[in-house]
This record gives sequence, structure tokens and C-alpha cells, in this order.
Amino acid sequence: MNIIEIIDKKRLKKELNYDEINYAFMGYLNGDIESYQMSALLMAIVLNGMSDEEVYHLTDVFINSGDILDLSKINGVIVDKHSTGGIGDKTTLIIAPIVASLGVKVCKMSGRGLGYTGGTIDKLESIPGFNVNLTDEEIIKEVNTIGMAITSQTKNLTPLDKVVYALRDVTGTVESIPLIASSIMSKKIASGASKILIDIKVGEGALIKTKEDALKLSELMKNIGNHYNREVRTLITDMDRPLGRTVGNLLEVVEAASILKGYGKDTYLYKVCIDIASNMVSMALNTPIDDSITLVEKVISNGEAYRKFLEFIKYQGGRLEDAALSKKTRVIKSDRMGEIKEINALKIGMLSASLGSSKFSVDDQIDYGVGVVLNKKVGDVVKFGDPLCTIYIGDKEDYPNPLDAFTIE
Amino acid sequence: MNIIEIIDKKRLKKELNYDEINYAFMGYLNGDIESYQMSALLMAIVLNGMSDEEVYHLTDVFINSGDILDLSKINGVIVDKHSTGGIGDKTTLIIAPIVASLGVKVCKMSGRGLGYTGGTIDKLESIPGFNVNLTDEEIIKEVNTIGMAITSQTKNLTPLDKVVYALRDVTGTVESIPLIASSIMSKKIASGASKILIDIKVGEGALIKTKEDALKLSELMKNIGNHYNREVRTLITDMDRPLGRTVGNLLEVVEAASILKGYGKDTYLYKVCIDIASNMVSMALNTPIDDSITLVEKVISNGEAYRKFLEFIKYQGGRLEDAALSKKTRVIKSDRMGEIKEINALKIGMLSASLGSSKFSVDDQIDYGVGVVLNKKVGDVVKFGDPLCTIYIGDKEDYPNPLDAFTIE
Repeated sequence: MNIIEIIDKKRLKKELNYDEINYAFMGYLNGDIESYQMSALLMAIVLNGMSDEEVYHLTDVFINSGDILDLSKINGVIVDKHSTGGIGDKTTLIIAPIVASLGVKVCKMSGRGLGYTGGTIDKLESIPGFNVNLTDEEIIKEVNTIGMAITSQTKNLTPLDKVVYALRDVTGTVESIPLIASSIMSKKIASGASKILIDIKVGEGALIKTKEDALKLSELMKNIGNHYNREVRTLITDMDRPLGRTVGNLLEVVEAASILKGYGKDTYLYKVCIDIASNMVSMALNTPIDDSITLVEKVISNGEAYRKFLEFIKYQGGRLEDAALSKKTRVIKSDRMGEIKEINALKIGMLSASLGSSKFSVDDQIDYGVGVVLNKKVGDVVKFGDPLCTIYIGDKEDYPNPLDAFTIE
Repeated sequence: MNIIEIIDKKRLKKELNYDEINYAFMGYLNGDIESYQMSALLMAIVLNGMSDEEVYHLTDVFINSGDILDLSKINGVIVDKHSTGGIGDKTTLIIAPIVASLGVKVCKMSGRGLGYTGGTIDKLESIPGFNVNLTDEEIIKEVNTIGMAITSQTKNLTPLDKVVYALRDVTGTVESIPLIASSIMSKKIASGASKILIDIKVGEGALIKTKEDALKLSELMKNIGNHYNREVRTLITDMDRPLGRTVGNLLEVVEAASILKGYGKDTYLYKVCIDIASNMVSMALNTPIDDSITLVEKVISNGEAYRKFLEFIKYQGGRLEDAALSKKTRVIKSDRMGEIKEINALKIGMLSASLGSSKFSVDDQIDYGVGVVLNKKVGDVVKFGDPLCTIYIGDKEDYPNPLDAFTIE
């Protein structure tokens, strides 16, 4: 067996067996296969696809590359949640405190930035002192104490997925249904939860661009769940415009806090959070969805969810009071009058990434204080000179024209 | 402009403009673009193709990455020849001395092993002392003195193609018509010849597997030639079985000498050499093809071509008398009786490569003395125990079963 033959096989759209997938991917983890060979194989997978069998093999290889978390020491029902991400997606930061305050245990492994989208871990790291590298013991203790924990993947949990994920991020090989499905599901299965809710974001600003692809991904993830005897529920939610008003790490933490305080009830971000949280509650407590919605809205109104959010940040060492946004801001004003027809999520994501909020290459540094705040939403009517958005600027001054993200007619 | 956007564009099958192609490829040469990003882009090009315009852009970028050879100091008509390579292709070693002994100037830049196929430079380096790294001055002096020179690409001639070629070799991204065409044509144009003959090998053992692809490549190379005002002639020749009786670097030098001495006139290798050489003579001297064939056969019969071969090797420092094949050999005997229906060129190439005759990764070492000698040809009838081939073995003992390359029924 050699790697060129394996790449050739996938290039020619032939099916790889378990041994070949294991040889290529574990070889990459072990340093026997070069990164330029793995990225060529990944691009061939992106363009030529994978059969369900190949996806099960890859998921197995990911899981077996590390440890499996034993959650049996946690008291109560654990529901894991995953969002496929999108521009401005800060739902995890909002949902986890909500369901934890209702007694559902949340023990969540989150990821870093993927392509032009941020990751929950990057967002939490924008809070000085916040520790995203918990040990298994720390996770179990925290969940048993305050009901929730969010951590990056622990060192021995699907280490292979971690390195493959980092390589995909910088090689344009993120957008692949089989790779996304096996990456997410291997993490979720190794993370130990028996009930898993997946929020599939679809639209211009998401990894998944079409409803059709979202349905394929949903189907594939349920098949993988079935293969491993896990209860998997999926939601398909819109991501045609940035989710919420902010894009950028610390800016999104601030917005999450604001939603938990009960602001923005008329927004799509709020609606999505209620949908996800109530489905998690419904899975955990076996309550009908309507009753679950009532429970969720109650803990927002009475402040319990927000208090849980503060308790959680403090527990993991975060000092919100020390967090600072970039001092340098620039207000982008409309150069015409009319109605805002579109705010292009991808362009806003690329703008934020260019300002420094995510990585273009493995060695890049993230600037946590930069990003974009939208001052207007789709449907608003603006006149010449009205502020459209405010950008928070760090060291990087070479960013695309923010006006290009807005369609005003 | 950033590399991920460029990879994404090609992944989505959109056309890249000159600036994007220049940014990605020159960035790779300069070290600004990582090898894992370039290999992902290459795989996307392999699978999604390139328009003619994109190929002209890439050819331009290759040519402009280095110097252009000035052959005006060479007296006489220069015809350049290129073969797309295949298993056991040693035609350059045979043709160059033939046409040089007829007064046609040969000034040839050759390549190293590509995929499972060897390169002329690797073959020449199997001769102790042979210098494949000539300066421009040395090339011109040699061609004016003995009529021919074969060298690897000089340092400043399409340096970009050199690094891309090396990366393609180890990432399964060799088989692409646009990449093959721009690689070959940029080298040929930068090498300065105004008349160029391209031998396109087609079949199981070649880079180009089908007649259809060979015609596409032929068309594309003629288009590029036209774009640069060069006379381009193409031949399409078979490569369904290994070309000649030997595969492996030094073994092929020995076989080339044998053909030049007039042995093997009934073989396909001999026929191909006559075809190519007579077309080169016809282009250079403006003689009809039949007259050219007569001239070519004459210099083989009277020994002039073989003497030119020896003169050339000596001129570039090679000591044929010091060259040594691997001492360890193994005769592979037939395990059945019947007629040989097929000798699979790719399998013979992979067998030889596994023995150490070519590279699987950039840092691999070539073992020049290893390879395969075929004792039988397609159509021969064998009985149990008859020798099918002899393999020359070095340090690598982990090679595929040689019997798998033979179909005997």
C-alpha cells in the first residue's frame, strides 16, 4: 500500500476500503504521510465524494485515533448539541446556559474557526483567563457542579480530526458533506453523549449552501448515529445573512450576553436559539415541544439563564470585566439611498476574517477584539450617510470594502 | 486576493484569471503559499480542468518564472523533442544520437521520474560521472562541438515548473492534460527551439490512458505552440506494454545502446524510434518523410549513431565501463502454461518503482541498478517454469508479485 495509489484511487472515483483510509489518515497523524499528500487526497474526496461505507470507515478511524470520553460519572441526562457553523453563529453560548438552568446536562466539545466562520472556542478565548483546555476530570466535575462545561477537544479525543480539521481550514477543503459528517459525528460519538442534536445551517453564509445539501448531511449524520446506536435529531436553520448583529470573537460574546438578558426577542437569532434549546430539552426530559418552549422562555425572562452564563464563565476562569474590544473603529456609511435588499453573510465573514478574527494559515494569530457590528438589517430603508455597520480594526488594515456586502436599491 | 479564495474558485469550477494563477503559483515558488495549499489547488485543477486561456496564463507564468535560453549561438537547425513518458521509455537516448549524426542539432532539457515512470535524467545519472547539470555556455559549446547535449533544466529555466513537477509527482496530481501541456510547452518554449516534436504516449503504461485524451493533449499543445509562434508536430504512439525489454534506469541505458548497435529491428521500440527520428529530420532538413527514414536507417547500420552515443556520454563525463547493475537478481518463472495475453506496463512500472528505481516522496533515493528485464513478450507461449522476467534487486525487498503483471491463458 502506498499513499499515491490511494490518492489515485480516489482521484479516479473508486471506493477506498477501511485499510486504505486508515493507512492514509493515521499515517498523516503519525507523520508518515506528508501534509501536501493529505490535502491532495482531501481535495479529491471533496470533489469525488465518499460512499456511506467510506464515511463509516473514516468516522471509525477518527474515533479510534484517540480516547472515548466516559460520561457515566455525570448525574442526569446529557444532550450534546452541534451547529455546523456560519457567520456570526454564537448559539452555543446562548443555548448551553438556557438548558443547563433547566437541569439538562451540557458537556460540550467545541471547535475553532473553520474557513471564514468563527468557532465557539475562539469566541470563548476572547475572554481573558478563560480556560478552554479542560481535563476529563475537570469536565465531569464542572458539569456535576454547575450543569455545563464547554471545552475544546481534549488532547486524546479524536486527535486525528483535529489535525485534519486544521489542514482543511487552510486548503479550501472544508465544504464536503462526507468530511463534515464524519468530523462532527466522530467528535460527538467520542464525546460520549447518547442524545445528539445537530443544527444544520444552510445558506450563503454557511458551510452548507443549499437545502438539498443540508438534507443530504442530515441523512448521513442520522445514518452514522444509527450505525453507532445514538439518538440523533437535526434542525435545518437559515444562514442567508449573518446570525445576529455581530461578527468577531468578543463582539459575539457580548451579543450572546445581551440575548440571555432578554434583548432581541424579535430577531432570527433569538428564534433559532429557542428552537434548538427547546428541542434539546424535549429530548432530555421527554416533554412535548410546546411545553419545552415555555420552559425555555421562562428561564430567559426570570434571569436564570443569564446567571448560569456568568457562573459558567467565572467557573472556567474567564474575566469578562477585563475583555476589551479594539479601540479603533470606523463607521461605514451608506453611499446611496434605498432599501437594504441583502447583507451578504460570506462577505461580512470575509471582512471580519481579513480584520484578523480568523486564520488563513495554520500559523496565523487571531485578533479577538476585531469584527463587525451591523447597524442595519435587511429591509431597513437608509439614506446617504446613514451608518450601515461599524468595524473594529486591529493591526490589519488590508480588508475588502465593507460596502460590497450590502445590496441597497 | 488570498489563496483559499483561489482554491475555492477552482474547486467550484470557475475560471481563474492571470493574476490569480500568477499569485498562487509564483507564491508557491517564493514560499508564500504552502505546499499543502498548492497540492489542493493542483488536485482541483486535475479534477475540474482548465480552459485554454487558463493554460496560456499558466504557461506564461511558468516561462516568466525564469530565464529563456538563447540558442542563437548554435549553428544549424535545432529540433527539440519531447516524449510524454511511459514505462520503459528510453527513446531520447536512442533518437538524439541518430539525428545528431545526421547534422540535426539536439539541445535537450529532460526531466526526472514522474509518477511510476522514469525520466531520461534519472537514466543518464545511472552512468557514473555523467553530468546532467550543464550551464548555458556548456550546452552551446557541446551542441556546436558534437551536435547534441542532454541536460536537466538549468537552474533558471522554468524554476516554477520544476517545483510544481516535484510536488505533482508525490501527490497523485500528475495525470492532467492542462498541467501536462503547460509543463511541457513552457519548458520547450523557454528552451528556445523553434521546431518541436512531441511524442504523445498513450495506453495503460503511459500518463495518457486513452486515444481521446492524447488527441486533446495534442490539440492543446499545438494551440500553445501557435500562441507562441512555434512549429509543433505531434506523434501518438502506443504504450500498452512496456516500451522495449527493460524497465529501470541503467538497464534502459544498456538497452538503448543495443538498439543503436542495430539489434531489435523487429521490435516496437525500434519502430517508434525510427518514426520520431525521421520526423525530426524531416522538420529540420525539409526532406520528405520516406527519405528521412532512409537516412535514419543508414546511420544505425553504419554505426555512426552508436559512435555518437558513446561520444556524447564521454563528453558529459559518463564512464559506462564503471556502471553496475544490482548483483542480486531473481528469475520469475511461469506458474502455468499458456499464451502471454498481456504484460501490464503499469504493474511492471510499479514493480520497478517498488524495487527502488523511482521516487514515492521528495526525499526518496533512487537505486540506479534495480529494475526488470522481460524475458518474454506478448504472444509468446510458455510452459510451467519458463522464465518470464528477471528482476534486479537492491535494498528494497517489499515489492508486488511480478506474476501479477502477466496474463497467461
